[in-house]
Amino acid sequence: MNTRKRIIIVGATGTMGKYLATALESEHEIVRVATKSGDYEVDITSTDAIEKFYKEVGEFDALISTAGPTFVGPWKNLTDKEFRKGVEGKMMGQINLVLIGQHYINPKGSFTLITGALTHEPQINFANASAANGAVEGFVRAAAIELQNGIRINAVSPTVIENSPHYFPYFPGEIPTTMKQLEFGFKKSLFGAVTGQIIKP
Amino acid sequence: MNTRKRIIIVGATGTMGKYLATALESEHEIVRVATKSGDYEVDITSTDAIEKFYKEVGEFDALISTAGPTFVGPWKNLTDKEFRKGVEGKMMGQINLVLIGQHYINPKGSFTLITGALTHEPQINFANASAANGAVEGFVRAAAIELQNGIRINAVSPTVIENSPHYFPYFPGEIPTTMKQLEFGFKKSLFGAVTGQIIKP
Repeated sequence: MNTRKRIIIVGATGTMGKYLATALESEHEIVRVATKSGDYEVDITSTDAIEKFYKEVGEFDALISTAGPTFVGPWKNLTDKEFRKGVEGKMMGQINLVLIGQHYINPKGSFTLITGALTHEPQINFANASAANGAVEGFVRAAAIELQNGIRINAVSPTVIENSPHYFPYFPGEIPTTMKQLEFGFKKSLFGAVTGQIIKP
Repeated sequence: MNTRKRIIIVGATGTMGKYLATALESEHEIVRVATKSGDYEVDITSTDAIEKFYKEVGEFDALISTAGPTFVGPWKNLTDKEFRKGVEGKMMGQINLVLIGQHYINPKGSFTLITGALTHEPQINFANASAANGAVEGFVRAAAIELQNGIRINAVSPTVIENSPHYFPYFPGEIPTTMKQLEFGFKKSLFGAVTGQIIKP
């Protein structure tokens, strides 16, 4: 039912990105992007690198991002310096993928960014991610009413994910999001009609 | 009923800050902070300036911030460069007031930051504020579970405010927050026991 699309996956070498690439590649053309390795190596903290990438990659129908570097660690070590990891990475990295990418994506294309339950369900050590997530979610709702040519934007907000059990101890009380739920969350954004939504898979 | 407190108001020369200073000064000692004029001139985009201010100001029981510089303007002009206005101002400016200020505030003190309805109710031209608000709100919830010594943190989230009628045309459908509602929102944070809350006055 879904027309074949050309889908860029940013964060393609991570746990989520690899899974999504495998889940989508039988029916769609996947372009794998990561900081190191992948079809394209792109440092998303650099607007020049993002611009260069879009110029090279050519036409595409969708971009999904699972790229979320943030500072994880004790609050007592959290200063402006550490906070910048999430500001430049998960927040501005993803926001710039959209601000720049809107000029390259096909009409009726879609952006799907990654946030997470930490926006509303904080955990000790993860304040940087809570803030970055909140920023991306606010941005997604605002961008949805600004983007032209039928371009949509959503975020997928899982909690700790099934395939990252080393994080389980840091997320007491959170029932892990399964990889299948994560996949379906991204599919809702990719193949549905919604925009400006924070999808909790 | 409320014990006399020493309250720092950041953004004291703005519409909200001036009103709150007047509303609180009969019962409390107010320290007015602004970029220009006030008891202290502090550029909150500089962590050095914030640190220097706290060293000078001495003991205090509460800090309330109404300082929210963001980029307001057409989406087509919105790039990383413009976006930084809200990132450095309303977002990191306020976050750094807390990350640094926690080491200076009295035990059982409180921080009250400013966000706004744009977090969840976007309007054309205000994507930068939506993102900055979302970041501050995520941070507030996370900081509330990390702060020690009974220190509390909340945000007040008004919509367009009564005393800024020049903004009304940009907020169709928003019933303005009255100055009295705003004052009561801040008082709930200042004199109540809540923490980690986004107070919609």
